[in-house]
Amino acid sequence: MSEIFRELTVDLGERSYPIIIGSGLLGSTDLSPYVVGSQVMIVTNDTVAPLYLDKIRSSFPGKKVDTVVLPDGEKFKDWQTLNRIFDALLEQRHSRKTTLVALGGGVIGDMAGFAAACYQRGVPFIQVPTTLLSQVDSSVGGKTGINHPLGKNMIGAFHQPQVVLIDTDTLQTLPSREVSAGLAEVIKYGLIRDVTFLDWLESHMDALVGLEAGSLAEAIYRSCACKADVVALDEREGGLRAILNLGHTFGHAIETFAGYGTWLHGEAVGTGMIMAADLSAREGMISREDYRRITDLILRAGLPERPPEKMTPQDFMRLMAVDKKNVDGALRLVLLREVGDAFVTADTDSGNLAETLGAFCH
Amino acid sequence: MSEIFRELTVDLGERSYPIIIGSGLLGSTDLSPYVVGSQVMIVTNDTVAPLYLDKIRSSFPGKKVDTVVLPDGEKFKDWQTLNRIFDALLEQRHSRKTTLVALGGGVIGDMAGFAAACYQRGVPFIQVPTTLLSQVDSSVGGKTGINHPLGKNMIGAFHQPQVVLIDTDTLQTLPSREVSAGLAEVIKYGLIRDVTFLDWLESHMDALVGLEAGSLAEAIYRSCACKADVVALDEREGGLRAILNLGHTFGHAIETFAGYGTWLHGEAVGTGMIMAADLSAREGMISREDYRRITDLILRAGLPERPPEKMTPQDFMRLMAVDKKNVDGALRLVLLREVGDAFVTADTDSGNLAETLGAFCH
Repeated sequence: MSEIFRELTVDLGERSYPIIIGSGLLGSTDLSPYVVGSQVMIVTNDTVAPLYLDKIRSSFPGKKVDTVVLPDGEKFKDWQTLNRIFDALLEQRHSRKTTLVALGGGVIGDMAGFAAACYQRGVPFIQVPTTLLSQVDSSVGGKTGINHPLGKNMIGAFHQPQVVLIDTDTLQTLPSREVSAGLAEVIKYGLIRDVTFLDWLESHMDALVGLEAGSLAEAIYRSCACKADVVALDEREGGLRAILNLGHTFGHAIETFAGYGTWLHGEAVGTGMIMAADLSAREGMISREDYRRITDLILRAGLPERPPEKMTPQDFMRLMAVDKKNVDGALRLVLLREVGDAFVTADTDSGNLAETLGAFCH
Repeated sequence: MSEIFRELTVDLGERSYPIIIGSGLLGSTDLSPYVVGSQVMIVTNDTVAPLYLDKIRSSFPGKKVDTVVLPDGEKFKDWQTLNRIFDALLEQRHSRKTTLVALGGGVIGDMAGFAAACYQRGVPFIQVPTTLLSQVDSSVGGKTGINHPLGKNMIGAFHQPQVVLIDTDTLQTLPSREVSAGLAEVIKYGLIRDVTFLDWLESHMDALVGLEAGSLAEAIYRSCACKADVVALDEREGGLRAILNLGHTFGHAIETFAGYGTWLHGEAVGTGMIMAADLSAREGMISREDYRRITDLILRAGLPERPPEKMTPQDFMRLMAVDKKNVDGALRLVLLREVGDAFVTADTDSGNLAETLGAFCH
């Protein structure tokens, strides 16, 4: 296991930061060089805290380390819970030189990152993602935020971490549903930009589902490298970065319809990617064979093929209308020009879209 | 009046923006060139809306203009009220290409600006300040945010507007308390960096209190120019910009003690500057004659000389301990090296500070 150690840099000029990936990192890595002041506030949840809080607390020798433990779950990604971070920071008198540490999954990363973006108009933070989804997706790229009852991630900021520390050992205790959800994003990178990685995934999917450590580390490294490339090219999502949303427009609609936290984000993205592949085929861009290849891989990862039973095409249209990618009311979708090549379009044929929605709704 | 028209630029590289100052601008200025997309959301309050909302609505020909009217007052500068802006944006389906417009005083500017900073991780906004305080201070420099029960402006972002439009006519109906509050910040610019302007203020204070239009325009222009200089040199408040907080550490403590909205921000800053001048004299930097000169000018502007009756030195120490300028627990204050030359220090003699607090508390 000691051989599994990778590092890469997200290249954003003066906001560049390293991603360190490996086994046994948590508790053995001194993170104090990434802390400017003397204060650290660890933000975690009540599931992760019993597992890793002590290890991470010991990673900041010489610093004053405080902790805030939030309830676990996407349904707590709201202002009320976010405000508990501000309460803790102010009660413990953290100055604008404090550093926040996000220890947990994507929800913790998004909330701690957004709290860091807003506390006293911005303080540094460190990401220590403990789920596969957050390791390959939300800890890279600086997107932070919370949900609003009318839309997911509608309130937030771009705020880059000082460092991302990924310990693959944390995946050994992850529920299998969450492993599958993470694999959805891993597959996404292959689909949008890297067909060689997609081939690799097809031959290693069983190992990944079986939590084989070497394969996990490789998949995380290649996913982070892909996302880091895309983010470096387009930090503020002016154009290219939007391809990272493959499957997300359908997926967000599913999540909102089901109620935040009912479907895991990655599960909804998995189904969303199948739907996007179907639409890409109907638009004449990929073949039905490509579509089946994509669907097979997503199903092998343990992800759902269809949206919730009661969800109608009208539900999709209504919920997709508030998607952030939309410009001046026009629906924008990420589709596949071919396998390994995604693009953003506002010119989808409405008949094809209706057929896709009709085919997938029960 | 048509002669009174000034323009200056806040120089922040690609985030540079113009400040347009003049009489009769509201309703006669086409602001649509500053709007990227087709959607505009005007954020205002129930005091300002009846006076100027129609005028500003007509300033965006060809755009879809929506409005959200918030309750007026510093006590509404909280998350709950901020969320009404997000509600309106999502209910009206504003995309990430929308532009927010802040029409009102500093509270509206701070809230609309922070909403713009966070909505879909950041959209553009326009400042149309209608109080003297917001015209000379909060509309310049990109500070946005809301209050937390444990501290003022503790949650926020740096977010620069596309343009600031200042119509001096809006001051003719402003309550005299608010004129005085605005003059506190005007005097501040003279004190921290521009003794020539301070001389000018001493000879024009009666005209300013009497709302003489030409003098007001000149004072606003010179104040904005001073702040724009300081902000351009130090956008993120790494060092120099902190001198803009002269009187604010004492002032924030007064505001928090009195309860947000009981004292106007400028009133608290006026008293705070008198206290900072007293402490500067005790520290041996300015003379007692300088101190009396400063106090005289602040009192001529109609500002209060002392903190609330029941406020004790202990209240000050407790409330100043959470000030954002503090670093690692050390209290940092802005003092006057001489009249027209302010600086930040963490080395104030605690005995002198105690004497100042003792002298001003009743």
